Amino acid sequence: MSDAPEDMVESILPTRWNRNFEKLANDLCPTLHRWTRTPQRVVKFDKDGSQYFGVRATPADYPIDQLSPKSWGKGDDFILDFGIHMVGYVSFRLESRGSHMDAPCRLRLTFGESPLDVTLGMDNVKTWISTSWLPDEIINIDMCPELVTLRRRYSFRFLRVEVIDTSPKFKVAFSEVQCECVSAISQGHSLEALQFKDKLIQNIDHVSISTLRDCMQTVFEDGPRRDRRLWSGDLRLQALANYSTFKDFNLVKRCIFQFAAVVREDDSVPACIFEQPQLTPSSDYIVDYDALFAAIVNDYVVASGDTSSGHALWPTVLGCVKRAITHLDPETHAFDEAKGEGWNFLDWQPGLEHSAGEHGVLLYCLKAANALSQVLGKEAPFVDLAAQMTQAAKVFISPDNVFISGPKAQVSYASASWLVLAGAFPKDVAQRALLNTLAHPDALKPLTPYLWHHVCDALATVGLYEKCVEIMSDYWGGMVRAGADTFWECYNPEDPQASPYGDVRNNSFCHAWSCTPTYLLREKLKEFVGVNGTRSVTVGELDEYWIKSRLSS
Amino acid sequence: MSDAPEDMVESILPTRWNRNFEKLANDLCPTLHRWTRTPQRVVKFDKDGSQYFGVRATPADYPIDQLSPKSWGKGDDFILDFGIHMVGYVSFRLESRGSHMDAPCRLRLTFGESPLDVTLGMDNVKTWISTSWLPDEIINIDMCPELVTLRRRYSFRFLRVEVIDTSPKFKVAFSEVQCECVSAISQGHSLEALQFKDKLIQNIDHVSISTLRDCMQTVFEDGPRRDRRLWSGDLRLQALANYSTFKDFNLVKRCIFQFAAVVREDDSVPACIFEQPQLTPSSDYIVDYDALFAAIVNDYVVASGDTSSGHALWPTVLGCVKRAITHLDPETHAFDEAKGEGWNFLDWQPGLEHSAGEHGVLLYCLKAANALSQVLGKEAPFVDLAAQMTQAAKVFISPDNVFISGPKAQVSYASASWLVLAGAFPKDVAQRALLNTLAHPDALKPLTPYLWHHVCDALATVGLYEKCVEIMSDYWGGMVRAGADTFWECYNPEDPQASPYGDVRNNSFCHAWSCTPTYLLREKLKEFVGVNGTRSVTVGELDEYWIKSRLSS
Repeated sequence: MSDAPEDMVESILPTRWNRNFEKLANDLCPTLHRWTRTPQRVVKFDKDGSQYFGVRATPADYPIDQLSPKSWGKGDDFILDFGIHMVGYVSFRLESRGSHMDAPCRLRLTFGESPLDVTLGMDNVKTWISTSWLPDEIINIDMCPELVTLRRRYSFRFLRVEVIDTSPKFKVAFSEVQCECVSAISQGHSLEALQFKDKLIQNIDHVSISTLRDCMQTVFEDGPRRDRRLWSGDLRLQALANYSTFKDFNLVKRCIFQFAAVVREDDSVPACIFEQPQLTPSSDYIVDYDALFAAIVNDYVVASGDTSSGHALWPTVLGCVKRAITHLDPETHAFDEAKGEGWNFLDWQPGLEHSAGEHGVLLYCLKAANALSQVLGKEAPFVDLAAQMTQAAKVFISPDNVFISGPKAQVSYASASWLVLAGAFPKDVAQRALLNTLAHPDALKPLTPYLWHHVCDALATVGLYEKCVEIMSDYWGGMVRAGADTFWECYNPEDPQASPYGDVRNNSFCHAWSCTPTYLLREKLKEFVGVNGTRSVTVGELDEYWIKSRLSS
Repeated sequence: MSDAPEDMVESILPTRWNRNFEKLANDLCPTLHRWTRTPQRVVKFDKDGSQYFGVRATPADYPIDQLSPKSWGKGDDFILDFGIHMVGYVSFRLESRGSHMDAPCRLRLTFGESPLDVTLGMDNVKTWISTSWLPDEIINIDMCPELVTLRRRYSFRFLRVEVIDTSPKFKVAFSEVQCECVSAISQGHSLEALQFKDKLIQNIDHVSISTLRDCMQTVFEDGPRRDRRLWSGDLRLQALANYSTFKDFNLVKRCIFQFAAVVREDDSVPACIFEQPQLTPSSDYIVDYDALFAAIVNDYVVASGDTSSGHALWPTVLGCVKRAITHLDPETHAFDEAKGEGWNFLDWQPGLEHSAGEHGVLLYCLKAANALSQVLGKEAPFVDLAAQMTQAAKVFISPDNVFISGPKAQVSYASASWLVLAGAFPKDVAQRALLNTLAHPDALKPLTPYLWHHVCDALATVGLYEKCVEIMSDYWGGMVRAGADTFWECYNPEDPQASPYGDVRNNSFCHAWSCTPTYLLREKLKEFVGVNGTRSVTVGELDEYWIKSRLSS
């Protein structure tokens, strides 16, 4: 997720603080694991039209251990390749070479998640979100030798070092370059490594896991490069991927209780919270993200068995669907985006009609609440409404069996995927309508991996595995083929410089809502895609494997 | 002083370390005094052709204590005026205002010694010395509130703060802006305040003292903004000004022993030393700076009474003139810049013929060595040579009584001032030739305050007080009228953007070799200019007086 456009921000409702929940969440704050990585090679990027980003990394003609004897003066630059995406703190030893260091040294450091970051430069970026997110630092060092330690955390694989100036009398040399990586998941953490039959599928699974790991900090961040905060819709997907891999239940629990600590006076759950300088709800509100809190809690209780938290959160679960319910037509029980208040999201695609999709989301969430009630030994609260909405969903399917939404009967993947996920139709109807919609020439496609996930999840849910894997191989596989180490905030196969923000240099290339293929592969597609075996490996071993494969390719 | 042009750097002679001297110097390293200053007002600079820099400071329409309630967003900027030149470390408290700080804040801070620094901006500076000296920092703050503490020392009066970006959701507010000032001279240090009859003279004396104080750190720096290191020729002038004011003998002693610790194998003294990361001689060598070491030691022993150091340094004094002596014609004993090796400086004026001036410098230094020998009860080593050189000096005076130098009989202030200072001629001859030279239409004038000092010193030495004060009022007085709080590295009354480096933004506006008027006024001109009285004041009181007078003018 990322910031809402200005006109989507509503006036802030007062928060009804639950200090017990806040304390519970605070007590669960993980001590981050730390480990050190060093650059694997020096690279330059040559133009190459056959590559997605239009450039190809060429290793320097000297190995990385020959970096430190080299000295660099005004205008020189080089790019380090750490061989893997990381989140952490960079340091290096800077020494002067020459008669004496008779002036400061001014450096520009640019941290690249993609080759574009370190080849386009960071000047003249036109973007409607903050340019303060741009991943470059200009630093001045008065005296060498110095162990230069950058105070800020960066998210990157490449580090471009530009020597803005030294003086005619000295140059500088770099040694001991390293990144102290951080994550809630340690290098020693074990997980089940599935040996998928298909290499691309294997890589998609791997890149999903790397994405998730790098987003798992003291909360599930949406992206460690930009925004760096907790959104409920993103949390749901991260939590699902986490249950299939790392199984860090405490971090999910912490995040759930952070949201529950700051519900608003109308019982709605904010779309996003800030962890620093202290827990605070964002002013952002999203109708679907609010309702999805019920699904998040249900998923968590089922995965963890922590029914005690389920009981504590039950009032919040009952409250989180209230705002979405106000959008229902009181007679037909069909969701109408023109009714009620709040931002309906589903996807960033402009012009999307949300009624059908939101209908699906709400029905999905009501069913999740009903399911949770069963686990907790409570009476299911939304049986009647779920039945009414299932009946009402019929208006969202056209006579020729495509999913439609709104007065203009808009056909979209968003409507289709959520109505299928909600189980609003018998399996055969859902299958047919879903495939028809996906094949429809006017169907509005997803813009974000967030919605592409729901498309794939819907396909897998009704057993359309082939189509699901086809999309996954195309979309997430496309990023892997383009060189992704982690999955991106947005991916346009046609345009490597596409950006929702006006400039690709403000895009995030490790974004939580893109990490779900590992969940789908492990929970829904394992049999279809085929697995040669499984073994237990550590995260550190997986990282080493990845670095090796990246540098040999 | 500042760095030599590349072609003036000779191959480095091996250093003959004296570790005892080094230890003695290290043991004398002062603990810097620290005190806090806060900005006095917010200002903007409006164009005003009547001002030297073409701009006039206009106070903001709110007092400084109303700064912190204000908030600043993308593209906003303001300029703080601390009311006095300072050297120190800046910190401030940064807070966010708005719904939440959902992005970092990127700031550009520019530290201005002159109005040009904070009005021209620091982009596209074309200069042949290092642009790393430019006094700006770009910093990124991830989370507020934060006490932002800049690690680097800056030299400034004005601080321009530019908000490069926040985000649409928040702005930032600044409070507790302060500078922890540093100097070897404390605020409680007492000195004699002379109440000169003339207000301009009073101000010239004051600005000299401020310049000296801000250059007195763990060594006598040439300029606290740029270069920040110890040059022997500059040290001599600072030491003289110091004996007349602060009387910090230990700091002079430390610097003298630093030089004596690193003489080269031919007994020559390097022009400059580096204090950090450890004591190191620079590769710079200057013939006149080498010889002047004898005068520095003699001045020190006379001023401090520390004959014990005089004895320890005696071999170095004898050695420091050897290189200069190799430039003498063996038959005539006249200095010839074409003979011997090494860079003859005297001034930065291009095209300057150095023979006559260097003849004066060397004779001056030989006499200083002879004088020191008397104090130390030793036999005067250079009586004969001084006599021979006095005789030889006659070639540097023309039949029409101007000082001349070289095969083309160049007339210059440099030749005149040093031959007069050396006492190479009877007082009446010297007076006449000096005034003739200064009045000569073709005479090459000084470019630097360093040489202007020697012109004034020469005038005062032979009793030409009126001309001396006229030049002082014109030259140093011109800087005061232009708004100087400290004296500048260079001053061109006709061109406020003149620079020896190609861009005024790399000039230093607090430069040691400009601090000598207080020495001349107190030691040589007191009676001529007239003093109403004296009283003992602290440096802190002087500073407060200056801030008040600056802000009321």
